[in-house]
Amino acid sequence: MEKIRIGIAGHGNIGRGVELAVERNEDMELKAVFTRRAPETVEIMTEGVPVVHMDELPHWKKDIDVIVLCGGSATDLPVIGPEIVENFNTVDSFDTHAKIPEYFANIDTAAKKGGNVGIISVGWDPGMFSLNRIYAESILVQGDTYTFWGKGVSQGHSDAIRRVPGVKNGIQYTVPVEEAVEKVRSGCGPELTTREKHLRECYVVPEEGADLNKIEKIIKTMPNYFSDYDTTVTFITEEELKENHSRMPHGGFVIRSGETGREGSKHVIEYSLKLDSNPEFTASVLVCYARAAYRLSKKGECGAKTVFDIAPALLSIKTQEQLRAELL
Amino acid sequence: MEKIRIGIAGHGNIGRGVELAVERNEDMELKAVFTRRAPETVEIMTEGVPVVHMDELPHWKKDIDVIVLCGGSATDLPVIGPEIVENFNTVDSFDTHAKIPEYFANIDTAAKKGGNVGIISVGWDPGMFSLNRIYAESILVQGDTYTFWGKGVSQGHSDAIRRVPGVKNGIQYTVPVEEAVEKVRSGCGPELTTREKHLRECYVVPEEGADLNKIEKIIKTMPNYFSDYDTTVTFITEEELKENHSRMPHGGFVIRSGETGREGSKHVIEYSLKLDSNPEFTASVLVCYARAAYRLSKKGECGAKTVFDIAPALLSIKTQEQLRAELL
Repeated sequence: MEKIRIGIAGHGNIGRGVELAVERNEDMELKAVFTRRAPETVEIMTEGVPVVHMDELPHWKKDIDVIVLCGGSATDLPVIGPEIVENFNTVDSFDTHAKIPEYFANIDTAAKKGGNVGIISVGWDPGMFSLNRIYAESILVQGDTYTFWGKGVSQGHSDAIRRVPGVKNGIQYTVPVEEAVEKVRSGCGPELTTREKHLRECYVVPEEGADLNKIEKIIKTMPNYFSDYDTTVTFITEEELKENHSRMPHGGFVIRSGETGREGSKHVIEYSLKLDSNPEFTASVLVCYARAAYRLSKKGECGAKTVFDIAPALLSIKTQEQLRAELL
Repeated sequence: MEKIRIGIAGHGNIGRGVELAVERNEDMELKAVFTRRAPETVEIMTEGVPVVHMDELPHWKKDIDVIVLCGGSATDLPVIGPEIVENFNTVDSFDTHAKIPEYFANIDTAAKKGGNVGIISVGWDPGMFSLNRIYAESILVQGDTYTFWGKGVSQGHSDAIRRVPGVKNGIQYTVPVEEAVEKVRSGCGPELTTREKHLRECYVVPEEGADLNKIEKIIKTMPNYFSDYDTTVTFITEEELKENHSRMPHGGFVIRSGETGREGSKHVIEYSLKLDSNPEFTASVLVCYARAAYRLSKKGECGAKTVFDIAPALLSIKTQEQLRAELL
């Protein structure tokens, strides 16, 4: 079997997840990991694979079919995404919802210039959740779609906690309110406020001698992040943080309820994820979309794509005949 | 807005559902309903739409963009499917799993001959459940996929009951075993027998003076249909049947659990449907795939397709820009 040659750009949690995901797909091989850091300081898991400085990327054009972009959405992807897709097919997990149209346009221009495919915003949200929103809404035209996240760690909210004076370390879990989920599942199409949908649980390691009441108050009243939610703050030790909060679980639900017919028959479509490791799952989604990018590129396509543009068969290692016989 | 012109071939439960679904999609209009019966004996819901004999179909080529085939899979679709797709784009809900490869090949040949698109096996299983199997398996390469059906009416099993001597009428519900579903949800990847996954609940109206014990025994020991299941038989009156069992609810679950990484992080992906009306929901899926057939045909594609071959964006009434801004 000719293998799909994968490169990884950026070696944080997602990059490590992509390494692990490539191992589990027998039609793929990892060719190199690219980094902005000094390559000799980056340790990777895959034996025999070189770590290379990002500046060397252009020399690898003939050796790599798809680069999985594992940078952050805030400052990293908007710069390296368009740069890299000019020379390579790419897949990324760009997740700044408000900036997707702009990012799509930039990737599209660069990808077309280079004759490559760039699939953006791949993961579980955006990604699998987006797919479930479009399928459910296309079927149940009249209805309401609800997305709940969690229970899982929000990186942005954890960062916000850690910026509070007197806080040494901390982590934040987004928790869907079970009552709200049940109400949505019943198909009654409730209107729910932000506060009614999610709770925020904070575990905080204070600095020695810090004013705990003050920390709690600052967190709970922080605009945008916590003030619109019922927030709990629990103070713990650094050891407890390491022991009980070092994994990265996540998950959530997309639920659409809607009506059909003249008498309004009710239907509920629900998709849910329960993930032990957010980055490993995200990476597994990225890797099967890398397969799609490779196949589309082979067919001569180019430009920016999203999960909405990718026919499901392109994701699977199975042949069309196998898919129809085994999965249809 | 130029509307997609829909025809319906066959006017049973699904055909009536398609009528209702077209009403709920503003970019579509119903042009005609085709039937094998005497047209004047067929009553439809949509005002001003003609009921036409199936023999007249070839004269409608210029007036219809997509025909939704609403015949049965056993004897109807294998005959009319290839015939009609030679002249029209089609969508159908062919659901005899074992015969899908053969049916696909026949539709493909005829569709290519006529330069049309024929999307087969559209609905919820095959259909939405198939999609969830392919997405989940492509992401979690190592794992197990489980499908549970119900609680809902199985037409085939209801027919089997009604053929038992002494039975006047009856209906059968397939019921997923809650314990089995929970075990699968836990991610432990259990091996489950047929009996452990589903129960079969039968509601039977006996003929006057029939031997109830004998009926119950014949049903419970019927091979293929009931002998491999825990089956309950409840005798009711014709009035109770009409009162309590005339709706057609259904639903079910597709659950995949699998592992990622070297340490085997566990993940569970679950998709579920809770449907008031099986035929109306199936019809709603058919109608959004009719939109895809229309668009693919406009792009010059032809041949047989399944849900695996259709990019999700083709199903939605929204523009690419709207989809990226609103649903991604």
